[in-house]
Amino acid sequence: MEKKIPHRFYLTEEQMPKQWYNLRADMKEQPEPLLNPGTGKPVKEEELYPIFCEKLAHQEMDSKTRYVDIPEEVLEMYKIYRPSPLCRAYNLEKALGTPAKIYYKFEGNNTSGSHKLNSAIAQAYYAKDQGLTSLTTETGAGQWGTALSEACAYFGLPLDIFMVKVSYEQKPFRKAVMQVFDGNVIPSPSNTTNVGKQILADNPNTTGSLGCAISEAVEKAVSTPNCRYVLGSVLNQVLLHQSIIGLESKKAMEILGEYPDVVVGCAGGGSNLGGLIAPFMKDKLDGTKPNTRFVAVEPASCPSFTRGKYAYDFCDTGKITPLAKMYTLGSGFIPSANHAGGLRYHGMSPILSKLYHDGYMEAVSYEQTKVFEAAVQFAKCETILPAPESSHAIKGAIDEALKCKETGEAKTILFGLTGTGYFDMKAYSEYLAGTMNDYIPTDEDLQKGFDSLPKID
Amino acid sequence: MEKKIPHRFYLTEEQMPKQWYNLRADMKEQPEPLLNPGTGKPVKEEELYPIFCEKLAHQEMDSKTRYVDIPEEVLEMYKIYRPSPLCRAYNLEKALGTPAKIYYKFEGNNTSGSHKLNSAIAQAYYAKDQGLTSLTTETGAGQWGTALSEACAYFGLPLDIFMVKVSYEQKPFRKAVMQVFDGNVIPSPSNTTNVGKQILADNPNTTGSLGCAISEAVEKAVSTPNCRYVLGSVLNQVLLHQSIIGLESKKAMEILGEYPDVVVGCAGGGSNLGGLIAPFMKDKLDGTKPNTRFVAVEPASCPSFTRGKYAYDFCDTGKITPLAKMYTLGSGFIPSANHAGGLRYHGMSPILSKLYHDGYMEAVSYEQTKVFEAAVQFAKCETILPAPESSHAIKGAIDEALKCKETGEAKTILFGLTGTGYFDMKAYSEYLAGTMNDYIPTDEDLQKGFDSLPKID
Repeated sequence: MEKKIPHRFYLTEEQMPKQWYNLRADMKEQPEPLLNPGTGKPVKEEELYPIFCEKLAHQEMDSKTRYVDIPEEVLEMYKIYRPSPLCRAYNLEKALGTPAKIYYKFEGNNTSGSHKLNSAIAQAYYAKDQGLTSLTTETGAGQWGTALSEACAYFGLPLDIFMVKVSYEQKPFRKAVMQVFDGNVIPSPSNTTNVGKQILADNPNTTGSLGCAISEAVEKAVSTPNCRYVLGSVLNQVLLHQSIIGLESKKAMEILGEYPDVVVGCAGGGSNLGGLIAPFMKDKLDGTKPNTRFVAVEPASCPSFTRGKYAYDFCDTGKITPLAKMYTLGSGFIPSANHAGGLRYHGMSPILSKLYHDGYMEAVSYEQTKVFEAAVQFAKCETILPAPESSHAIKGAIDEALKCKETGEAKTILFGLTGTGYFDMKAYSEYLAGTMNDYIPTDEDLQKGFDSLPKID
Repeated sequence: MEKKIPHRFYLTEEQMPKQWYNLRADMKEQPEPLLNPGTGKPVKEEELYPIFCEKLAHQEMDSKTRYVDIPEEVLEMYKIYRPSPLCRAYNLEKALGTPAKIYYKFEGNNTSGSHKLNSAIAQAYYAKDQGLTSLTTETGAGQWGTALSEACAYFGLPLDIFMVKVSYEQKPFRKAVMQVFDGNVIPSPSNTTNVGKQILADNPNTTGSLGCAISEAVEKAVSTPNCRYVLGSVLNQVLLHQSIIGLESKKAMEILGEYPDVVVGCAGGGSNLGGLIAPFMKDKLDGTKPNTRFVAVEPASCPSFTRGKYAYDFCDTGKITPLAKMYTLGSGFIPSANHAGGLRYHGMSPILSKLYHDGYMEAVSYEQTKVFEAAVQFAKCETILPAPESSHAIKGAIDEALKCKETGEAKTILFGLTGTGYFDMKAYSEYLAGTMNDYIPTDEDLQKGFDSLPKID
């Protein structure tokens, strides 16, 4: 008889992982190294110290250490909101009429509203531990800025947050949440940095982009004494911290006697996807589970995997960061302001880019109205109002489940539900009113972005 | 050695209560009966059938049945978001420097953002089960309307929601959430009912009140075929459903080897407080735990317990409901529009009113700036952004913990954290900007409300 699977399954505090998992230690081929844009040579760890605090710079470069101890102080804060539940979507399965078993790891049950807190806590802790006195960052939809504000409030660190202007305007209350946690929120591009002034001069009506906000935050950090920059996605260190998602998921599924046939995650910069898949990808790489499929889901309006190039590019619009080899639309690419679905970053985690390039992962893209349709269906079935970002994964999982309905296969699907959509109601209203538009960049649109790629490959 | 208490403790699905607990079965003296305002005589169960569906009317009147089976369909939906966690506020304890142990039952981890879903599911289920084809209700802060929309979407029932106008305006995105779940939201008072038209004629600039919205929803229900009215607080049936909060809390504390010395809850209509305290109050009533203290916390701007009268009153402003004996400010009392802290209802659950009147419970009131101060402190310590309503309980619990600090007593405090404040950011912004005002009604203000009391006592 099949084991009775609860709707929501929580590990106990004792069962929580005490170490993060570094997927690079098990990759046969490593992601390409970061390059210094001035010299074109691989970046050394010490060269990152002006930007990142030292322990994080080390984690960024360290591809050898398989398991990294989670500091006690970080674990203490994790325990306020973790372990997060592994949920069985019984009602969604029933509504779809699929023989598939759908699981989701729900990371939205904390005030940041997303998985971003997992890395924010680690980064704020290491900064505090090194004796830094302030931090800067960027935020797009606002989830990362909220998460980092919470972590900085907890560890007592002042924080400047450059928020992508379109989100700043679309999500007025996000700002207020960050302010509750003492975050100082600045719409980007702004006149508070040289790079912001330049971008505004070139394009006064820009609605901003993550790449541009990153430039401003980095400039502010390197020009302020005892200050560093922190980033909520893309980086290797972030994927390391986010591995807690996958580790908890795998442990919970083991206890329930389950293992996923397909793992689905939304992909913006790759923080959630990279963390969710890490321990399952390990099993694929070492041959234990060679047939697991991994599906990255991205917006059709910002299709880095499905229509981008695998090339060296800047991580920011202002072109002041090191160069990373990744799937990218070019740092000059800015998605349509009409796009409300999040995941607006031009590039993609170098680790995930390498795995995708080497054929270990698939990718699909969806237009935003299809994504919101899936979000509303999910909400009614599972009583969780999902973030638009997370809803990409829902749509991907629904499509996998519908394939199972056609073939009659009872596959086990695991997807990452990264967060909640309480601050995305403007977008939901537009969707419900039928005024939401889809936007797919033309080849010409994309070419403009590719033209911004550095001539280095 | 003391048992290690986790930060968050979850019962398993199997440990979830399968029955609600009816506190009236253990009260030595019963609350006064509902009266028919026309005849002045106690209402019979059948007289409630035009307003409530039959099973709910029965639950409203039934003071004998101690435990009521939770229907299987209701349990199924409960399992999507329950059991809710019992949390130990280690960081808040540390920040306060108190020897007290502070626990809170967190009911905000669902999209309705509050405990209201516990009764919404039950009420929607019984309506569906009776073959009704639509429902009406009112909502103040929007939590109840959201909860009921979710439940109605789940069971496939159309729903009209009369939303207090001041909340409708202060919380634009609440409406959108209800619409995701197909709720039809109408600002109250409205021109869609006779009682709404009358209230608007008498007071064109009114910001509305729960009492007024109730009148409109009841009128709509009784004038629509196969439709009934449902209410999210005050009623005996609601306290019955909400007993799941207390039952889970008690079971979790038993497993952890704990029992509260003080139970603290916010009090608007009494739904959360009544549910939270129920099984602990049983122990006080039967002498098992005679010394447990129960503290109701209410806003100074709507002080039904602390400054109201224990009298028969209408449950609504339009004076079309039965009369209930309760602590009330009079159905004509409307709190200041400046009050952003919720809990705006003029009356109080008859069960809780009776317990308070008979000395089993205490009550305190706070001004809203003090409540928001506690909310921000709590958020920074525990990474949960609390609803203003819930923050009344936080403030109450903090004050109890500070008393322990003075006396050196390591008391065990349990409070109800009913929900999250994601839709209350306008109020938080005002608090942070220092533009939030306190409002305490004068004796003259209160007298105006008392003048609206029916002459029946």
